[in-house]
Amino acid sequence: MGDPAGIGPEITLKAWHALKESHELQFAVIGPLSIYEDAAKSLGMGGPIAITDASQAAKVFSIALPVIDQGRTGSVTPGAPSTAQAEHITRSIAQGTQMCLAGEAAALVTCPIAKDVLYRAGFPHPGHTEYLGDLTKDIDMGSTVNGAAKIRGPVMMLSGGGLRVALATVHVPLKDAAIQLSADSIIHTAKVMHEALMIDFGIAAPRIALAGLNPHAGEGGALGREEIEIINPAAASLRAMGIDASDAQPADTLFHEEARRGYDAVLAMYHDQGLIPVKTLDFHGGVNITLGLPIVRSSPDHGTAFSIAGKGLARPDSLIAALKSAREIADRRYAR
Amino acid sequence: MGDPAGIGPEITLKAWHALKESHELQFAVIGPLSIYEDAAKSLGMGGPIAITDASQAAKVFSIALPVIDQGRTGSVTPGAPSTAQAEHITRSIAQGTQMCLAGEAAALVTCPIAKDVLYRAGFPHPGHTEYLGDLTKDIDMGSTVNGAAKIRGPVMMLSGGGLRVALATVHVPLKDAAIQLSADSIIHTAKVMHEALMIDFGIAAPRIALAGLNPHAGEGGALGREEIEIINPAAASLRAMGIDASDAQPADTLFHEEARRGYDAVLAMYHDQGLIPVKTLDFHGGVNITLGLPIVRSSPDHGTAFSIAGKGLARPDSLIAALKSAREIADRRYAR
Repeated sequence: MGDPAGIGPEITLKAWHALKESHELQFAVIGPLSIYEDAAKSLGMGGPIAITDASQAAKVFSIALPVIDQGRTGSVTPGAPSTAQAEHITRSIAQGTQMCLAGEAAALVTCPIAKDVLYRAGFPHPGHTEYLGDLTKDIDMGSTVNGAAKIRGPVMMLSGGGLRVALATVHVPLKDAAIQLSADSIIHTAKVMHEALMIDFGIAAPRIALAGLNPHAGEGGALGREEIEIINPAAASLRAMGIDASDAQPADTLFHEEARRGYDAVLAMYHDQGLIPVKTLDFHGGVNITLGLPIVRSSPDHGTAFSIAGKGLARPDSLIAALKSAREIADRRYAR
Repeated sequence: MGDPAGIGPEITLKAWHALKESHELQFAVIGPLSIYEDAAKSLGMGGPIAITDASQAAKVFSIALPVIDQGRTGSVTPGAPSTAQAEHITRSIAQGTQMCLAGEAAALVTCPIAKDVLYRAGFPHPGHTEYLGDLTKDIDMGSTVNGAAKIRGPVMMLSGGGLRVALATVHVPLKDAAIQLSADSIIHTAKVMHEALMIDFGIAAPRIALAGLNPHAGEGGALGREEIEIINPAAASLRAMGIDASDAQPADTLFHEEARRGYDAVLAMYHDQGLIPVKTLDFHGGVNITLGLPIVRSSPDHGTAFSIAGKGLARPDSLIAALKSAREIADRRYAR
C-alpha cells in the first residue's frame, strides 16, 4: 500500500489499468478496500474488488484491481498524511512479506512511505528496506520458493537510465557517510550485488565499479584518504575472491554514456552519489530493487509526492517498471 | 597551457584547427613553443608560430596556432607529468591573468592541471580557481575593461547538458563538506551567481535552486539538520535581498529534465553533487566558468587525462565549448 495519503493508491490504480489486459503479470494490493474505492472514484475508474486469498488475484485482475482488504480505516485525505495510518502501512508490508515467504506471491512491490510519519508513530527502522531485512532475518536464505541468493542483505539497488547502482551507506546524514563507510560494508554489499547480478539479472560475469568517496576519488590522497585506506583495499579483497570490482573511480566521470559500458553496476559510497545519476537520467522509470532477501522485492524510486496526491497528476511509470522488474527477477529465480 | 604532459597541447591544437577559419574567436596559447611543435608533429598538423604580443594572435590565427613563447623547457613526455614543468604551468596562468587585466586579452581559458604534481612542487593553492582569486585579490572588481561583477568570488560554475551548477564547498574531502558548509558561504556564492547570471549570461531575473546536503534534503530533520539550520535560513536571507533562491531541494530529484526548467542555476553543496549531473548529461561538452573575478575565465571541465595523452585520442569538445563561453561572456561584459 505505502502511505495512503500519498500518490500510492492513484499510481496503483493507474498501473493496474495499464497492465490489466497484459499477460505479463498480475498483482493484488494489500490495504483497506475503502481507500482504493475512494481513489478509483476520484479517477473515474471502475471499482476495485476485495479478495481474501492471493490466488484469486489472477482471476479478477483483468476486470478489477484486486485488494487484499485490511478492513475499515479512518478517512484518508490525499496530501495530508496521518500517524493514524501507520499501523495499516507497516502491517501491509509485513503481510506482503509473509505471502512471499509462504509462496502465495512471487514478489513484493511496495508503494512509497513517508519515513517521518512512521517515525512519529514509533517505527524503529530507517526505511522499507531495513524493515524487510528485519522481517526476514531469521528466514534461511534459500528456503523459500523464490529465495535464491545465499548472501543476506538487504542491499538497495536502483535501476534506471541504463544504470544499476547500490549504496555502501544509505539513509544517513552526509556528515556520517564517511564515518560509517568501512571495507567490511563495501565487501559485503559488493558480494550481495555480485550474486544478485548473476541470479536475478542473469549476468554471467558481473563487473562492479566502485565509486570514490571524495572529489576526484581523493586525487591521490590530497582530497581525502578513504580511497587509499578503505575503498581500494576492499576492492583488492573482492578481486581476491574472484569478484570483478574496480578501484575507486572519480564519481563525476563514472556515469556518462561511454563510462556506463564499462560495468554492470556501480557501488556508490552514499545516497545522493548513486541516486543523482539514476534519477537525472530516468526520473519517471527508475526502480528500487532489494538484493539479498529471501523474497523478491522492488518499489518505485520516488516518494509519496503528497503535494500532488489526489489530483490525478501522478505518473505510474516507476511503479509499472518496478512490477515488471519484480516479475522478471522472480521468473529467473523460479527457473533455477 | 595546463600540464603539458596531459592532453592540453593536443586539445589546444585540435581546438585551433576546428576554429581557425571561424570568425567567432581567436586565441593564443601561453607556453614553451617546443611543446606545441612536438604535439603538432605527432598529430601531423602544421606548425605553431611564436608571437611576442597578443595583438598578433588574430593576424596569424587562420594559418597557425599562435604561441606566446615561454622559451626553452626540458623535454616533456606525454603521460609522464613532472614537477620540472610546474613553474611553466603556474607562470602561464599568471601571465594570462596579467594580459586580461591589461586589456590585451578578452578572456583567459585554462587547460587542465594535475593538482598533485603542482602540490609536490610547492603550489600553495587548492586549484586553478583559487589561484586566480589570489592573483586578482587586490584588483578593483570593476577596474578592468572586461571586469563587470561587483561581488568578488572566485566561484566555480559548471555548465553543460542544459545545467549551470555552482558549489558551496569545492575541493574538500567529503567528510569536511558538512563541517565547512556555512550560511555565509551559501549566501556569498549565491550572490556571485545571481550577479553573474545577469551580467555574464544575460538572464534578467535569475532563479537559483539550492540543493540539500543530506539524502532527501534531510527529510524534515530525520536525515540531517543542515537544511533546517544552515541552508534554508541562508535561502530566506537571500530572498530578503531580492534574490530568487529556493529552500533546500532533494538533490536526487533536482537535475532531471522537467526539474531543470524550474531554475537557471543550482547551488550544490559539495563537489560531486554538482559535477555528477553535469558530467553524466554532457561528458564531452561541459565547461567550467569562474564567476566573480575581474577577468573572464573558463576551462574545460575534464582533467589532464594522462592515460591517453600523446595518443591522438583526446576530444577538444570541452575546450572548444570553454573558448566559446569565454567569448560570449566577454562580449556581454564589453557591451555594457
